[in-house]
Amino acid sequence: MLPLFAAANLDIHDAPSRPKNMIIMVGDGMGPAYTSAYRYYQNNPDTEEIEQTVFDRLLVGMASTYPARQSGFVTDSAASATALATGVKSYNGAISVDVNKRPLTTIMQMAKERGMATGVAVTSQVNHATPAAFLVHNESRRNYDEIAKSYLDSDADVILGGGQKYFSSSLLEQFKSKGYQHIDDFSQLSSITQGKALGLFAEVQLPWVIDKQDSTQLSLLTQKALDLLSQNDKGFVLLVEGSLIDWAGHNNDIATAMGEMHGFANAIEVVEQFVRANPDTLMVVTADHNTGGLSIGANGEYAWDTQLLQGIKASPASIAEQAIAIDSWQALVNDKLGFEVTDTELQRLSNARMQGKQALEASLKQLVDTRSFTGWTTTGHTGGDVQVFAAGPAADLFKGNQDNTDIAEKMMSLLPRTK
Amino acid sequence: MLPLFAAANLDIHDAPSRPKNMIIMVGDGMGPAYTSAYRYYQNNPDTEEIEQTVFDRLLVGMASTYPARQSGFVTDSAASATALATGVKSYNGAISVDVNKRPLTTIMQMAKERGMATGVAVTSQVNHATPAAFLVHNESRRNYDEIAKSYLDSDADVILGGGQKYFSSSLLEQFKSKGYQHIDDFSQLSSITQGKALGLFAEVQLPWVIDKQDSTQLSLLTQKALDLLSQNDKGFVLLVEGSLIDWAGHNNDIATAMGEMHGFANAIEVVEQFVRANPDTLMVVTADHNTGGLSIGANGEYAWDTQLLQGIKASPASIAEQAIAIDSWQALVNDKLGFEVTDTELQRLSNARMQGKQALEASLKQLVDTRSFTGWTTTGHTGGDVQVFAAGPAADLFKGNQDNTDIAEKMMSLLPRTK
Repeated sequence: MLPLFAAANLDIHDAPSRPKNMIIMVGDGMGPAYTSAYRYYQNNPDTEEIEQTVFDRLLVGMASTYPARQSGFVTDSAASATALATGVKSYNGAISVDVNKRPLTTIMQMAKERGMATGVAVTSQVNHATPAAFLVHNESRRNYDEIAKSYLDSDADVILGGGQKYFSSSLLEQFKSKGYQHIDDFSQLSSITQGKALGLFAEVQLPWVIDKQDSTQLSLLTQKALDLLSQNDKGFVLLVEGSLIDWAGHNNDIATAMGEMHGFANAIEVVEQFVRANPDTLMVVTADHNTGGLSIGANGEYAWDTQLLQGIKASPASIAEQAIAIDSWQALVNDKLGFEVTDTELQRLSNARMQGKQALEASLKQLVDTRSFTGWTTTGHTGGDVQVFAAGPAADLFKGNQDNTDIAEKMMSLLPRTK
Repeated sequence: MLPLFAAANLDIHDAPSRPKNMIIMVGDGMGPAYTSAYRYYQNNPDTEEIEQTVFDRLLVGMASTYPARQSGFVTDSAASATALATGVKSYNGAISVDVNKRPLTTIMQMAKERGMATGVAVTSQVNHATPAAFLVHNESRRNYDEIAKSYLDSDADVILGGGQKYFSSSLLEQFKSKGYQHIDDFSQLSSITQGKALGLFAEVQLPWVIDKQDSTQLSLLTQKALDLLSQNDKGFVLLVEGSLIDWAGHNNDIATAMGEMHGFANAIEVVEQFVRANPDTLMVVTADHNTGGLSIGANGEYAWDTQLLQGIKASPASIAEQAIAIDSWQALVNDKLGFEVTDTELQRLSNARMQGKQALEASLKQLVDTRSFTGWTTTGHTGGDVQVFAAGPAADLFKGNQDNTDIAEKMMSLLPRTK
């Protein structure tokens, strides 16, 4: 018994397997129902077994996500990102400041103090709550312009995502004078061969995976971030966020959510490959909270129709926008949904269409939910625990139950010592 | 690296830490939202920290629960119990028979072949789906009478729970002639000092914890089962089920569900104590599926009012039954709910009361959901993964992601070898 007991109490700094590099990946809003749903969504109906996903391979534990007491039990992305970036609970809306609005030291700052490289790669605007909490401090996530400006002082080596509208030409000039190369199109990614890099690929968030019919956007950004950051001999800390899983969840839009899950899963596989090739790298994947109260099965039905969901070729928002503009909208709806809409359903959509785009979008989502047996309880967040996935040195540290602040503290404890 | 690699590939039968006794505990319907909700429900508002629960202490992994393909992705309790008892997926409704309705060998049968003791302790009728799948075989969970009769041939040493209505005097006589002592009241538990024992403590299911204001029922049955089964020198396999968590979930009744969670958590703590005192015992706790699509927070609100829930002193069903019968029903409702009902809410309850007991019960549940910010998507089951908790020898086998059939296979692999 004694050797085991002693081992469990070793200072983590004495562990032989301290990682050189650390990657934290956040599926925004990706509660446990999303990873189960994604498994069945991805399932190949032509094989007998249910295929495992990258989430199944990497699961090690779960984490509670409640914010500081004043904000109750249900966190927003800002308080949760603050917890993951600093190890401290704060109020909903806080960007790495404490309940008294004083700045908290982030893991990215600690990495910089150690000469390591840092970066973020996300599908939202780069100055959205999660990346912001890793890079800067602000009393409110809503101060988007202020947050974008403050990135100038973050010294981050790689900043990739959306958000062109928050970066004026003069602000971009300031980034350039700090040594950042600026790009605004995926085709330019190959032109960047070393940091620093500021890549803004959309006005605000990147396009939905389901609408672009391309699930490689976040993978490409992640691969580029790894290529650039791994040039630093002292190692790096990288945040990757599948930001729009949450946005689709807020919209209660299951088909679009599954597309974003696929994009995020692909990015995780890129990182998994990197960890296999670089055994000195730790990856930790988690969610910041649950969004939407998603359930697999609803309204008393013991079923979930994944084949129907797999056939949907565009987001309800995009279908509605197109269907409003043309007379032959019924054929378009049938084509984009990929299943035959009944006369009764068509009548309901037609009534909604006469009320405008938003009503038609809502009606399309309701149709998909009813047909697929998908449930939602809210357009906001819910307070259940999220999963934790990990691979690489010290991955075992993250097993079992923990709090989101523990994840940050464990990762911080794995940084090199400063002397 | 090599020693570690070799250890990971050791035949489990060669492991030094094979358990003598195994206890599997099933929280029926207890999806991840229930254990998170229970943590906040149990939280002491007078302390700064959120207190951990027994679930937090014991979490090691998660499990998928989908049934055999013909039943889709959402399981019922019978198919899931069949998976947990036999390691084989079957159709919804199956009691340890395969998709062709042929009997499947259960872990309880395997234990008996090895001279071990077996038992079940549950809060539903003892012949309900989960205990039935561990003890017998039947093509349908609905054949309650047949299942009860077939328990005669299960050779189980301890059968404790509800279900008096399924055991006629003549059937009870047959149990007695097989050596079973029969009791029907908790006060008689102390009179039983050795197996075999058939204890039926209610017509059908045991009373709700919240209505009895007593969360010790399942603990007492669990403790008695442990006392009796541990007398067998060859060890034992015990199933404990918090059956009514699921029933409260089907009713979309959060206050009652939290009461049942508390009763189940108490029973887990009894088993945890037994494992501490008997390090040769493995405990594995899981759920068979999610029920109700429960969410912490609903309708756009980032909140969950646990203090309100903690104050509720009776189930909405019981409050409605009492409130229908008396004129001063408003005072009763206020007292039993433990919070001040507004005039508008009271008017809504009054309208419902005039429609009868069921309408009043529904209205009370809606009031509690609205006030506490609790969400539901279905009165049935949902298909998300469930958690797995374990302690004792070989507990590590259950870490990470697995299928519910894997849980059975792992436990079966830990039984003594037959020669």
